[in-house]
Amino acid sequence: MIMHETVATVLARAESDRDGALERLFALMRIPSVGTQPEHAPDCRRAAAWLARELSDLGFDATVRPTAGHPVVVAKHPGPAGAPHLLYYAHYDVQPADPREGWLTPPFEPALVDGPRGLRIVGRGAVDDKGQIMTLIEALRAWLASGEPLPARVTLLLEGEEEFGSPNLGAFLTAQREELAADVCVIVDMSMWDEHTPAITTRMRGMCYVEMTVRGPERELHSGRYGGCAVNPLNVLNQILGALHDDRGRVCIPGFYDRVRPAPDAERRSWASLGFDEARYLRSVGLTTPHGEKGFDGLERLWARPSADVNGIIGGYVGAGAKTAIPAQATAKLSFRLVPDQDPYEVFAAFERFVRDRLPPDVQLSLTPFTMAPAFSVPVDTPWMEAARAALAAEMGRDTVLVGAGGTIPAVTMLQRSLGMDCLLVGFGLNDDRNHGPNEKFELACFRHGIRGHIRLLNALAGCGAMGGVNAHPSG
Amino acid sequence: MIMHETVATVLARAESDRDGALERLFALMRIPSVGTQPEHAPDCRRAAAWLARELSDLGFDATVRPTAGHPVVVAKHPGPAGAPHLLYYAHYDVQPADPREGWLTPPFEPALVDGPRGLRIVGRGAVDDKGQIMTLIEALRAWLASGEPLPARVTLLLEGEEEFGSPNLGAFLTAQREELAADVCVIVDMSMWDEHTPAITTRMRGMCYVEMTVRGPERELHSGRYGGCAVNPLNVLNQILGALHDDRGRVCIPGFYDRVRPAPDAERRSWASLGFDEARYLRSVGLTTPHGEKGFDGLERLWARPSADVNGIIGGYVGAGAKTAIPAQATAKLSFRLVPDQDPYEVFAAFERFVRDRLPPDVQLSLTPFTMAPAFSVPVDTPWMEAARAALAAEMGRDTVLVGAGGTIPAVTMLQRSLGMDCLLVGFGLNDDRNHGPNEKFELACFRHGIRGHIRLLNALAGCGAMGGVNAHPSG
Repeated sequence: MIMHETVATVLARAESDRDGALERLFALMRIPSVGTQPEHAPDCRRAAAWLARELSDLGFDATVRPTAGHPVVVAKHPGPAGAPHLLYYAHYDVQPADPREGWLTPPFEPALVDGPRGLRIVGRGAVDDKGQIMTLIEALRAWLASGEPLPARVTLLLEGEEEFGSPNLGAFLTAQREELAADVCVIVDMSMWDEHTPAITTRMRGMCYVEMTVRGPERELHSGRYGGCAVNPLNVLNQILGALHDDRGRVCIPGFYDRVRPAPDAERRSWASLGFDEARYLRSVGLTTPHGEKGFDGLERLWARPSADVNGIIGGYVGAGAKTAIPAQATAKLSFRLVPDQDPYEVFAAFERFVRDRLPPDVQLSLTPFTMAPAFSVPVDTPWMEAARAALAAEMGRDTVLVGAGGTIPAVTMLQRSLGMDCLLVGFGLNDDRNHGPNEKFELACFRHGIRGHIRLLNALAGCGAMGGVNAHPSG
Repeated sequence: MIMHETVATVLARAESDRDGALERLFALMRIPSVGTQPEHAPDCRRAAAWLARELSDLGFDATVRPTAGHPVVVAKHPGPAGAPHLLYYAHYDVQPADPREGWLTPPFEPALVDGPRGLRIVGRGAVDDKGQIMTLIEALRAWLASGEPLPARVTLLLEGEEEFGSPNLGAFLTAQREELAADVCVIVDMSMWDEHTPAITTRMRGMCYVEMTVRGPERELHSGRYGGCAVNPLNVLNQILGALHDDRGRVCIPGFYDRVRPAPDAERRSWASLGFDEARYLRSVGLTTPHGEKGFDGLERLWARPSADVNGIIGGYVGAGAKTAIPAQATAKLSFRLVPDQDPYEVFAAFERFVRDRLPPDVQLSLTPFTMAPAFSVPVDTPWMEAARAALAAEMGRDTVLVGAGGTIPAVTMLQRSLGMDCLLVGFGLNDDRNHGPNEKFELACFRHGIRGHIRLLNALAGCGAMGGVNAHPSG
């Protein structure tokens, strides 16, 4: 009962500072911390410093730690003796805002605008992941401002390279293994099932992201003088990438499916119970027809089957009008979404063989791996999971569902593997938040639920110590 | 004999002004008259005004004529009674200078630099077609400055839209048909066979240039959330364009070859006699292996067989690093080189059917035709041809060969069809001049030969009136 009263006090405290919470999120979103674009490196450092200052002001021992790339913020707060140690992971870097033309408001000038579900926060990072970071920080702020002690020991780990595969996180985790050792890791970068239904994510696809450049003639050629005689790197690129799928939507790389195992019946049944309406899901982005591997249901294709997508191509003349040249080279970016137990390095090697087998004479290939992350899955029967499901259900007034995710957070696998701890993947985004596209948004209602949800979750996980979690010490 | 002395006087006059000729060409090249890029429209007007002023200064009646696009310069000079009327065609617009990174000198700051064959003029338009225009203008200048009257009536027609298919030339020719009616049209935009061997071009390939955009989802999508479910326009583009050729290098569009007729044996024998070394031709651009339609020789593939090349593709994320998005759309530019009697509009329609047959649900297609030009061929047994061959042979000290060209000048077909006159395609470029690429150049020796060659050609064609050309009037 005392616990319950505390939560009510903290929730009330959060409600009393709604405008402040929004102002602070906007301040963070205004910093264009695009991790993947070198010109924004100073902005990444600014975002890290901003977060460390916020957390220091709340009473955290917060520091900005250098890495070989963008810095990591580590912020620590003690808890009662015997209470569990919770490690929260999130990221302050955001996706590029290109192409700009799709944006209705400037990407780094956050705005509150009207939407079909009420007000929404619009701007790059609104939900991925700055909005989610701030739901957590505002929850901690409310707790500390209410005068109540934090019920658990809390460490925040906020990195700046998630959107391009967390290249320096692994080394950081290894070096800081002892400092970061906790009872459970809460990953704050996920979505709810829908605006009413809380969700915890139990599996994610992995990734093999490749940049591929093919070079032919030593310079651009006049297509009249050389067309029908000189090899054209763009023609070659089309032929190779055009052969990537068969007419049933399967990836044609030899061996690609060798390690793919079917999703367990239990999971597939549970997904079927979600009543996923694929037609509606597609309609929301202007499409009518599923376009993937034949023979599998919508959620199974998204969560438990691998896929291949070309993400970008540039080559030759792309300005206004016509230019009749055979380009000297062409570049494609493409990515494979992987499932357990595909190995991203094996897939990369198989793709390289697939390409080289199709490479005509005089064409040089260079392949650069970017994100290489295995898929992730987590057991669903831990006390942490039970506590988290109950906390989120209490906030939303509905049972918490267990879902998969088609996306990839390499950090999740690293945290799981490097620190050897349970992971809880939570968050308050929605599937139509346009995370990587123009007009990224976070429903204001979801932002509010996020703050309240994190207050409840902190309380519930803190209780796991007492209720027989992995650290079965008596609570203080 | 009098004629011979006149030519010698004029040639000597040209020799005495070598530096001046170079300075004037540089002045013209400094004007970035890129016809295809709207931001350079004022530069096209400047280039036209510059040419009209030059020709006025020489005593021509020169005017800048508006069109729906870039203006046309028409410059007229009377000749002796009964002498033939020669119409010279060339173009002052140039190709875009993108990509800039390949250029060793700034494209619009012409330079004279050392090369394996001696000094060369480097810069956009050096040979295509500003350098060639200036060989003609300098020849006319030398003739007029020598004190001799021009031996023929001369009209220059200099347009500004050749590099993107002369969209407004046809209407202009129709409107000015009477003014431009001449005995023969000399097209000054071609190459020699090699640095020692003069050539006249008797056939050119036509073109069907298409811009193709495929649109899928209404916005860019997160490839984790939609990969394996939403159609990817870049995947679709690759599949369609990757199916454009079979493994023998033939274009797979149904009906594409229906109207293609084999080159006459006589022409093929003549080409065989040229001793074309395809391996060497390819080596000069860093290649080793012919990559076109199997079963045909090098020159036949380039001059008498159609081809298909993708000239540019842009779609998705192409910045630094990785972005995992499914793009909303992708655009390709591609062109077909056509031979007699292929119809560019028929090819466009056949390509559209080919694409639509392969278009999955939810993908919208838009196809925009750019250059649509039939192939060109000319009879080889006219007195103009005989006179021109002799004049060029006298300049170079070698027989003039009859060749084909793989490129396309839609203006040539328009002049032939609209004005109904014989066409002589001459020029002093070389095949390795990089006309549409970076570091376009014109060998200084070729520029000099060009000026002298035009002096001789003017004299020879003027003589056709007296010697029994189409206008068999007595010369003055």
